[in-house]
Amino acid sequence: MAQQARAIRTRQAILAAAAGVFAERGYERATIGEILARAGVTKGALYFHFASKEEVALGVLAAQMLDEPLPEQPVKLQELIDQGFLLAHRLQGDPLVQASVALAMDSGAVSIDRAAPFQAWVAQVADILAVARARGELLRHVDLMDTAELFSGAYAGIQTMSAIVCDRNDLTHRTRVLLRTLIPSICTPAVLLELDMSAERAASLAAEYTAHRLRREADLTDTEG
Amino acid sequence: MAQQARAIRTRQAILAAAAGVFAERGYERATIGEILARAGVTKGALYFHFASKEEVALGVLAAQMLDEPLPEQPVKLQELIDQGFLLAHRLQGDPLVQASVALAMDSGAVSIDRAAPFQAWVAQVADILAVARARGELLRHVDLMDTAELFSGAYAGIQTMSAIVCDRNDLTHRTRVLLRTLIPSICTPAVLLELDMSAERAASLAAEYTAHRLRREADLTDTEG
Repeated sequence: MAQQARAIRTRQAILAAAAGVFAERGYERATIGEILARAGVTKGALYFHFASKEEVALGVLAAQMLDEPLPEQPVKLQELIDQGFLLAHRLQGDPLVQASVALAMDSGAVSIDRAAPFQAWVAQVADILAVARARGELLRHVDLMDTAELFSGAYAGIQTMSAIVCDRNDLTHRTRVLLRTLIPSICTPAVLLELDMSAERAASLAAEYTAHRLRREADLTDTEG
Repeated sequence: MAQQARAIRTRQAILAAAAGVFAERGYERATIGEILARAGVTKGALYFHFASKEEVALGVLAAQMLDEPLPEQPVKLQELIDQGFLLAHRLQGDPLVQASVALAMDSGAVSIDRAAPFQAWVAQVADILAVARARGELLRHVDLMDTAELFSGAYAGIQTMSAIVCDRNDLTHRTRVLLRTLIPSICTPAVLLELDMSAERAASLAAEYTAHRLRREADLTDTEG
């Protein structure tokens, strides 16, 4: 177990270092050497985890997705709201998530597949909407793919604007405005009444996520010791 | 007049060249020399129009806004729809508008004020919404600034996603989905009935814009001759 914990740490260190190098130098100009130097790991360690700079970039891009699903909710659309709130929190506080989104939005990064993270978000939102539809939560005219693409694209835009204008300080508020404007157009009034889009909900999700993350960090340190 | 027409042409040539250089090399690495070489103009001509590389960038950023307002509509919210459709058309066909938006979204361009174009869009949308409110078109709970920021940010996101996924081929469709989902949450049902969000409306706006642009080009050539 100690060996596995060390491997997780090394992978995290490489991704964090790569995120920093990509942000400062741009993806195309960044080199494996710079990432190694910043991460303080050997070339062998890096190539154990990633076969190439492209694979490191895919690792950074993947970091914007949660590695564990959020708890299921009785009203499925609540999970869409919770995803939006939690992503706002992670974008505000986690440099790796920030770098991940910046890389996806970086039009200079021509040699990697920047469509992949968008498609992963669209697929995740579409899955939620499909269950919401099966449970009778959606209005009949709603097209699942159009709506999933709209939520993902619109969210990408409001977070970019928030980052540029105020370093994402107002992202939770903007996320609430987005959800409160989009969701009434897709769900039944009865379902709308059951949904919680309050700032309190956003704050409690953020607190739970942080607590869970700290517990995982502590577990990792224990198994290393 | 011939002199003025030539000055307009020179300015256009500089902005088009700068757009290309910024897109290929990134704003920070681009040099005035490269822009001069591509535009085929003298240093004196460039500095007559722009005092610095930053000013050239501001010129590129400003190119995403229309230089003439759209025709007024009896229902004010129709102008918001028309703006969205026309921007989709310009983003699909005008390299300078594409470069302008790419520069605003380029997180590597740290030495220019990328917030300015967002704020210009927000101000324009807020102006339309303020008139719509005065005419009784909006629901009472709608906050003008929140809504103006949402429209601008969400649009920025759907166009980025469309550019990455399919080179903006589906941008008119995505614009319709955005408008059809957002607008029912902000306007009265009676106003909603009066709005035209059809693909035909989008196509006719694009055709009018192209015709108008060709007329202006022809006028410019006439005064030069």
